[in-house]
Amino acid sequence: MSVRFSDRINAMQESPIRKLVPIANAAKAKGKKVYHLNIGQPDIITPPSFLKSIREFDQEVIAYATSPGDPKLIEAIAAYYKTYDMHFEPDEILVTNGGSEALMFAMMALCDPGDEVMVPEPFYANYNAFTRAINVKIVPITTKAEEGFHLPSEAEIEKNITEKTRAIVLSNPGNPTGVIYTRDEMDMLSRIVRKHDMTIIADEVYREFVYDGLKYTSFGNLPEISDRVVIVDSVSKRYSACGARIGSLACKNKDFSKQVIKLCQGRLCVPTLEQVGATALYGTPASYLNEVNTEYQERRNTLYKALKEMPGVICEEPKGAFYVVIKMPVDDAEKFAIWMLENFDVDGETTMVAPAAGFYATPGLGKNEARLAYVLKNEDLAKAMDILKAGLEAYPGRIESPIPSA
Amino acid sequence: MSVRFSDRINAMQESPIRKLVPIANAAKAKGKKVYHLNIGQPDIITPPSFLKSIREFDQEVIAYATSPGDPKLIEAIAAYYKTYDMHFEPDEILVTNGGSEALMFAMMALCDPGDEVMVPEPFYANYNAFTRAINVKIVPITTKAEEGFHLPSEAEIEKNITEKTRAIVLSNPGNPTGVIYTRDEMDMLSRIVRKHDMTIIADEVYREFVYDGLKYTSFGNLPEISDRVVIVDSVSKRYSACGARIGSLACKNKDFSKQVIKLCQGRLCVPTLEQVGATALYGTPASYLNEVNTEYQERRNTLYKALKEMPGVICEEPKGAFYVVIKMPVDDAEKFAIWMLENFDVDGETTMVAPAAGFYATPGLGKNEARLAYVLKNEDLAKAMDILKAGLEAYPGRIESPIPSA
Repeated sequence: MSVRFSDRINAMQESPIRKLVPIANAAKAKGKKVYHLNIGQPDIITPPSFLKSIREFDQEVIAYATSPGDPKLIEAIAAYYKTYDMHFEPDEILVTNGGSEALMFAMMALCDPGDEVMVPEPFYANYNAFTRAINVKIVPITTKAEEGFHLPSEAEIEKNITEKTRAIVLSNPGNPTGVIYTRDEMDMLSRIVRKHDMTIIADEVYREFVYDGLKYTSFGNLPEISDRVVIVDSVSKRYSACGARIGSLACKNKDFSKQVIKLCQGRLCVPTLEQVGATALYGTPASYLNEVNTEYQERRNTLYKALKEMPGVICEEPKGAFYVVIKMPVDDAEKFAIWMLENFDVDGETTMVAPAAGFYATPGLGKNEARLAYVLKNEDLAKAMDILKAGLEAYPGRIESPIPSA
Repeated sequence: MSVRFSDRINAMQESPIRKLVPIANAAKAKGKKVYHLNIGQPDIITPPSFLKSIREFDQEVIAYATSPGDPKLIEAIAAYYKTYDMHFEPDEILVTNGGSEALMFAMMALCDPGDEVMVPEPFYANYNAFTRAINVKIVPITTKAEEGFHLPSEAEIEKNITEKTRAIVLSNPGNPTGVIYTRDEMDMLSRIVRKHDMTIIADEVYREFVYDGLKYTSFGNLPEISDRVVIVDSVSKRYSACGARIGSLACKNKDFSKQVIKLCQGRLCVPTLEQVGATALYGTPASYLNEVNTEYQERRNTLYKALKEMPGVICEEPKGAFYVVIKMPVDDAEKFAIWMLENFDVDGETTMVAPAAGFYATPGLGKNEARLAYVLKNEDLAKAMDILKAGLEAYPGRIESPIPSA
């Protein structure tokens, strides 16, 4: 007998980042070493204050926290935002189960089934999961490797806005592209959302990961749209605490948190202990973040230098986050990724990449692209890149040069 | 400027359990002591193994866990189910962010917007939140205080089934009613779901809270529907660890976990440390659960004895969980609850109850009913009940006798 599943879950795809994991595990079981460029799990040590504060927790009953979040954590998040000249009252911040729940709640609050959100593609692949689960449609704003994934013109973007378009969802710094939007691009988006009565859901979990001394502006720094900007945040990357699952929503429009609090109450609360730990994390000295930034910038340099030396690979230098999307001279990036795991090694070692098709909403795009995360330490990263270069040369499905963007 | 919010979030209500909290806080600020019968936050000590195992965690990077859940925790949950003669393979169990996420994921996997789930009412109020957030309609199966909240006849239930009815969602033992369904009732539901190609989503988080030596059967113990039963579970009540937010889904139909895993990947993982703690909790000796059961049975006795002595109060003896829904001789239970907080005390102390209207889907039902949670220690519970009795006598909106069920 078979259960009938919903159309929405049938429409969901397995995570393109995680679905090749069984193949990687099989390779490892055969003794092959795999360098993971496919997942954004940093090797940076989590500030010890996280575990320290949790170890000191000594209440006998592990009780519910309040639904909007532990007031101490909310205070710590507000203090952190002040350092970016963003000023949120405690009732304008909600703690969530990771940035994932923050994104989901923001879209639920703004979109009914059939409504649309515009998203620059390639985008964080789980945006597909979130939107399909709640029957929201992604209208992609296509960006290209050759242009460093910067946005198309205002007219180009406006062309696809309908009366069902409720928000623009984007990550800045960009996952998977490493793009940092210019002030001109941000002003353009500001004009668009005001003109068309839309909201910006700004996923800024990589705020500290900006390189080359580039000036970073948050969407929370644009006063003219402060009532229509929702900031999604997380401790995952900032403090290398992905497993803590502590995120947040911040919005100067008080109606927003009044609405979203109903979703927060529905799931009762975020784990009590993780909030204690996250509060400590937000007290981490700026020197930690500076050191992490320096470390990632070096890794970015290692990665980009190596990529430039690979014939047929197309990419611009990523300026933020710790990812890059590259076009490769291969017939199919997923086939190539699997081939690297199953059929290729250099001295018993290989490299795993994330095929990029799952990061696009437009069918057919990203077929010969991959996302690389530079979360490994420099020497490992250098080895991984050497292996990738050798793999691209040896791959039977190699093509003359990647298919250019239309 | 105002943002346009979604119909789905506008349709959500504030938690009836939590929405009076500001009024309670105001009472406390004036020095009044409030006995909380409104929320199921037990005062039972969490087994120390929870914090102990977390304190011993010593990895330097708090990394993502696997999306379906930590294999050790899944193994521990499977071993726990074996003690109830339920036999799940590891790939038939998924770890979730509390029972809340488990319920949400199960309904998303089975229902598209506009689909229906049948739920015996009164029901756990957050079912309203979950379903509205994902555009699923609750079709209530009305049950009555006078009948101990047992189910109506098979014909009565079948009358409301449509081609859009995808599942029956229920809690057993029942929150908020304290009902334990008889084997006959379970067999009836089994016939119904087979006949109409539906699934049972069985919220059994109170499995250990069954009194008077009553034999408890899980929906997981009915082999004829094992492929269409989804078990929702949680450590929250079982181990008094509400703040851990660790729940699970279990289903013998392997297609179910294959579908739901896509939702799990979407939110990446459940917190790493909480899973370590929960694994330890599932190793708690049975003696702990027996002691807790004895303690709650005594509290149930204290509560029920006191209720029987309150003129005009109608309820049957609750047999499980740690709640009861009572009809009270009042015009409006919410007004009464607020009045108790704002205008009534006995020697500076008062009692807080949860108005029951929010536990019903049928408009108008539950207006003079309240849910009481007996999670306080016996002496406090006795005091709280004395205050409730005195309050009911003094309340200006007292009516001759509660409105009988239709």
